[in-house]
Amino acid sequence: MTSDRWRCKLSNAFGGLLRVCVEQESSRIPVRSTTADKAQGEIVRKLKEAKASKDQIGEEMAKLLDLKTQLGTDDGKQMFALKTPKGTRDYNPKQMAIRESVFNIITSCFKRHGAETIDTPVFELKETLTGKYGEDSKLIYDLKDQGGELLSLRYDLTVPFARYLAMNKISNIKRYHIAKVYRRDNPAMTKGRYREFYQCDFDIAGQYDPMIPDAECIKVVHEILAELQLGDFRIKVNDRRILDGMFAVCGVPDDKFRAICSTVDKLDKASWEEVKNEMVGEKGLAPEAADRIGEYVRMHGGFDLAEKLLQDPQLSQNKHALEGLTDMKDLFKYLALFKITDKVIFDLSLARGLDYYTGVIYEAVLIQPQNVHPSEELVSVGSVAGGGRYDGLVGMFDPKGRKVPCVGVSVGIERVFSILEQKAEASEKKIRTTETQVLVASAQKNLLEERLKLTSELWDAGIKAEVLYKKNPKLLSQLQHCEETGIPLVAIIGEQELKEGVVKLRNVATREEVDVSRITLVEEIKKRSIQS
Amino acid sequence: MTSDRWRCKLSNAFGGLLRVCVEQESSRIPVRSTTADKAQGEIVRKLKEAKASKDQIGEEMAKLLDLKTQLGTDDGKQMFALKTPKGTRDYNPKQMAIRESVFNIITSCFKRHGAETIDTPVFELKETLTGKYGEDSKLIYDLKDQGGELLSLRYDLTVPFARYLAMNKISNIKRYHIAKVYRRDNPAMTKGRYREFYQCDFDIAGQYDPMIPDAECIKVVHEILAELQLGDFRIKVNDRRILDGMFAVCGVPDDKFRAICSTVDKLDKASWEEVKNEMVGEKGLAPEAADRIGEYVRMHGGFDLAEKLLQDPQLSQNKHALEGLTDMKDLFKYLALFKITDKVIFDLSLARGLDYYTGVIYEAVLIQPQNVHPSEELVSVGSVAGGGRYDGLVGMFDPKGRKVPCVGVSVGIERVFSILEQKAEASEKKIRTTETQVLVASAQKNLLEERLKLTSELWDAGIKAEVLYKKNPKLLSQLQHCEETGIPLVAIIGEQELKEGVVKLRNVATREEVDVSRITLVEEIKKRSIQS
Repeated sequence: MTSDRWRCKLSNAFGGLLRVCVEQESSRIPVRSTTADKAQGEIVRKLKEAKASKDQIGEEMAKLLDLKTQLGTDDGKQMFALKTPKGTRDYNPKQMAIRESVFNIITSCFKRHGAETIDTPVFELKETLTGKYGEDSKLIYDLKDQGGELLSLRYDLTVPFARYLAMNKISNIKRYHIAKVYRRDNPAMTKGRYREFYQCDFDIAGQYDPMIPDAECIKVVHEILAELQLGDFRIKVNDRRILDGMFAVCGVPDDKFRAICSTVDKLDKASWEEVKNEMVGEKGLAPEAADRIGEYVRMHGGFDLAEKLLQDPQLSQNKHALEGLTDMKDLFKYLALFKITDKVIFDLSLARGLDYYTGVIYEAVLIQPQNVHPSEELVSVGSVAGGGRYDGLVGMFDPKGRKVPCVGVSVGIERVFSILEQKAEASEKKIRTTETQVLVASAQKNLLEERLKLTSELWDAGIKAEVLYKKNPKLLSQLQHCEETGIPLVAIIGEQELKEGVVKLRNVATREEVDVSRITLVEEIKKRSIQS
Repeated sequence: MTSDRWRCKLSNAFGGLLRVCVEQESSRIPVRSTTADKAQGEIVRKLKEAKASKDQIGEEMAKLLDLKTQLGTDDGKQMFALKTPKGTRDYNPKQMAIRESVFNIITSCFKRHGAETIDTPVFELKETLTGKYGEDSKLIYDLKDQGGELLSLRYDLTVPFARYLAMNKISNIKRYHIAKVYRRDNPAMTKGRYREFYQCDFDIAGQYDPMIPDAECIKVVHEILAELQLGDFRIKVNDRRILDGMFAVCGVPDDKFRAICSTVDKLDKASWEEVKNEMVGEKGLAPEAADRIGEYVRMHGGFDLAEKLLQDPQLSQNKHALEGLTDMKDLFKYLALFKITDKVIFDLSLARGLDYYTGVIYEAVLIQPQNVHPSEELVSVGSVAGGGRYDGLVGMFDPKGRKVPCVGVSVGIERVFSILEQKAEASEKKIRTTETQVLVASAQKNLLEERLKLTSELWDAGIKAEVLYKKNPKLLSQLQHCEETGIPLVAIIGEQELKEGVVKLRNVATREEVDVSRITLVEEIKKRSIQS
């Protein structure tokens, strides 16, 4: 089909769209009130009810878009945006090299703690995700209904994990899962906030003695953040049961717990005044109750704070708070054995947004000394990990409501990538994106076949080798390729070397050259690769 | 909201659906022909045109589904299917262990050949994928339009790669990309055919001397299949230019080339008779032309066949065929240098479905001796890799139509997984799913804190260590955990050991126990881990 014919179709489709709009207008003209007119009015009403016009506009718009797309590729030239979808990005080889090093650190830590790994599909049945994320459900990506199941892209790795446990009737497992998740949030890509991003999850499922797996999760976060060398950090901890107890003694009605909890969660970004206003104004809480909450959420400390709050005459009377505070003491006892209490803060303002938490919750933030301010106060530069205990989630999937207690942590590494990328750029240290050990080269013409033969021998011996795809490349351009990509060695062959059964092995950095027998070449390359 | 209220809503929604159906029926009753009636008729017609009723039914159905879902999670019990979406699966830890070993082999090979890696988003703008896959476009998963861009899940890794090259104005790169792709095909999961599956792609982009990168891609496939030890295999090669030349000399009209090519592609699954019927019946080709094609597609060989076809008086007169055959000779020359011609067949029946190929094409199949048949004929058990040259694809994305010649291969590993999984099950060899080196245990009570302390010391020293999350676990259950998960060592502490500053290090397999000083414990564990 020619471009002209497409343009004609496009114009017809525009006409269709206009016609629908006109028809929509004309249906608003008042009609005389006879029986027939009434019937007509009734139908018009139904027509409106069914939002038929609106749907039709949608249909015509879709046709237009389709035609535009087809027109775009018709004559070989693209007429559409050459970009990745909003909030997503490609990773180039340098970024991948950084990503791989981060994943290696994280995976090693998870394996050091004895975790297995699983994988789940990128999409789930829509109903699997329904009712798990509270207000954030609106951020879920749905797939188009193309006849079949209603599907959504996974929003996190926790809900698919719970579905997996229920489906396979697994009652204990320690697993990690590193994969991309999807949220239709407002992206802020300079801050490392994307719509497609990685989560690195470590979870322990099973019925165990209190706070031991919980403490290990915090230890895991500590190990990862220490090893990534991103600067100083703190891990804030709290407990949903302590929050609930606190809300109860402050006079928050039971049915407002979750709503008030969501508001408290905003304290890391908003001031207490703003948070209080939302509690009283939007959520309808009594100002006195809000003020009492305000006193609690200012508190932070460690083991001592848990002890002190256990002396609080009201809080200690609340069953949930009592349990939470007693467990918090145990948690800090274990964290002391792990020698990490200096980075962990029991912080009563930590709430976390997700609905499914039932016990301890935690969040790790990177901090840096605020140079601007003379007081050297520590400033958070953002959350990089979070998690907690969710004892009820698996039961939501199990046909018999059988519960599997779980605790876990999710490391969000996009922000970590952003920081490491900036570091890498600032340092000007060259990042290699390949691992090639040797380039097979020649200075003379007509040696392509000999070069290919030698390269193939090296591949078969497990050597990482490259060869330029030219019949007669210049030696200079072969050496340049090594300089650019960081290949440390060149194996040079010429008529003379072939006759003598040797290869000239050149060190790119030192420009040193030695003749190596072809029989020992592989061994020599291996030896030099270990040294470098 | 209570369950009862949801049930009430559900019943109302059912009512809505019924009402729409009734209204649809009643609109078919003939009306008297007055002016008003005519107007009514007109509106009814429009109503039908707009498919309003159908849309309304759709809406009511959606409401029902929503209510069903909400009802399902309302009282904590799930009323929905506990499953993964059609054509997808979870990977359990054992499957992940196999997957990791396969990926290691493939990644090592790609790196041995000097490839970098990139990553792209799981979805692309819908228009990026439009017009690239011919008939298969219907298998693309679209995302729901939730206000924003029209998005589709990637169908392969080749088109996103071409988009990446054009977007970043890259004119040469050797890259690999291992990631999941999505096709709404009929799944055959026992045969390893899924809707979500991995592709492992290796591509070389850039203007080079003919057939050198092409030969390397075939070498890569050969190395991977040999190393995976899946049994014997063959790599079939052909060239789109040879196919086009062949179609021309057989009398296929120019505009039927792609359609006839798609039909030829079915020859690996269908008989010649069936394929001929499709050519003549469905595609309207003259029977004589089909017969002439039939003679060509029976041919297979190597370098010699290319030479022989260059003597074919008609084929050699065709410009495309001449180019393709000349290049095919070079290809076999390079493959001979790589010593892999015994596995490579020049097969004129190989066509490959995708539109974007412009030169050499290839496909690797696993074969096994057919025991049933006395002739020991080789039987294909399916394609595991495929690829070819696509010199026009990047130009479709480039605003100036600038071309970047590309050649690549995609290894489809789901079938490989299936085979290796079956092998693993048959062998009864135990696959470890963790790498834990040592379990920290105790035989006595009240030593939880000492166990945690020692475990933490081991973690900090880089030892992969586990500890049971029980206050007072039995020694037997600690040893059992090692047996079940394959942990080779146990570090046992008791009052006596603590007093003496030692740890009892037990070899799980031999039951041998030695006292090791706590100072040298890390070293001892490392030494024993290398041995095992």
